Amino acid sequence: MSSGASPEEAVRDANGAFYAAFEACDLDQMSAVWEHSDRVSVTHPGWPTLRGWAKVVGSWEAIFANTPYIQFVLTDEVVTVAGDVGWVTVDENILQAHASLDGGPEATDELSGALVAATNVFVSEGDRWRMVVHHGSPVQVTQPDIDT
Amino acid sequence: MSSGASPEEAVRDANGAFYAAFEACDLDQMSAVWEHSDRVSVTHPGWPTLRGWAKVVGSWEAIFANTPYIQFVLTDEVVTVAGDVGWVTVDENILQAHASLDGGPEATDELSGALVAATNVFVSEGDRWRMVVHHGSPVQVTQPDIDT
Repeated sequence: MSSGASPEEAVRDANGAFYAAFEACDLDQMSAVWEHSDRVSVTHPGWPTLRGWAKVVGSWEAIFANTPYIQFVLTDEVVTVAGDVGWVTVDENILQAHASLDGGPEATDELSGALVAATNVFVSEGDRWRMVVHHGSPVQVTQPDIDT
Repeated sequence: MSSGASPEEAVRDANGAFYAAFEACDLDQMSAVWEHSDRVSVTHPGWPTLRGWAKVVGSWEAIFANTPYIQFVLTDEVVTVAGDVGWVTVDENILQAHASLDGGPEATDELSGALVAATNVFVSEGDRWRMVVHHGSPVQVTQPDIDT
């Protein structure tokens, strides 16, 4: 964001702004993070890929409406920049509450934890980096047994 | 690949080479698709993100050893190029057989289908495009109900 930052720092800042907007469930903040174009896409955990800004922002609206509380602890955040494109792989350790659909005065929100593997792609636009891809997927297995 | 191709065509070719290598379960072909560097990463469906070429190639070796048969029908393949980076979002309609771990002459492989949402990132290297990110995630829900 600041003109003195390296591209990697700027992409890291943009990635941080994405998670801040998500935690705040703030559609204006989230909207400011993204490029508003046909080439953007989002793949929420377990969802099919949604393409184009209209569908992307619609998904955030739906998610925010059903998320009373969400907190991210980010681990293994790795930022790479190649020219005008930067991408981040990061593990999202999530604590969240789900809205009780059967509501009523006695209803309490259910808290749950999840681990999501995310890939986020940003494109440079002047001195700003705008998100063009968010892909999050549920981690269902522990570290696979791989010989390296 | 051919010097006369547009960047979008070249990225589409590179993406096709990735799936051809996957269908062939051929480690040499798969190796030729990827950049061999620390910045590459792979997130297989349900797996945590693996970073660096050693872990990436190790994962392909493990998957190929346990995949007697796999076939991809790709739908909604969308290619975007920005400078030296290209990315593809694509739906993988998969038919595959899993190795019978309890083996024996009577063993038959079990066929199953799956839908995986994939994001693939490529970086230009001379006249070649090399894969730096493959992220595949299981689609567990039908098209979400989103107002757009």
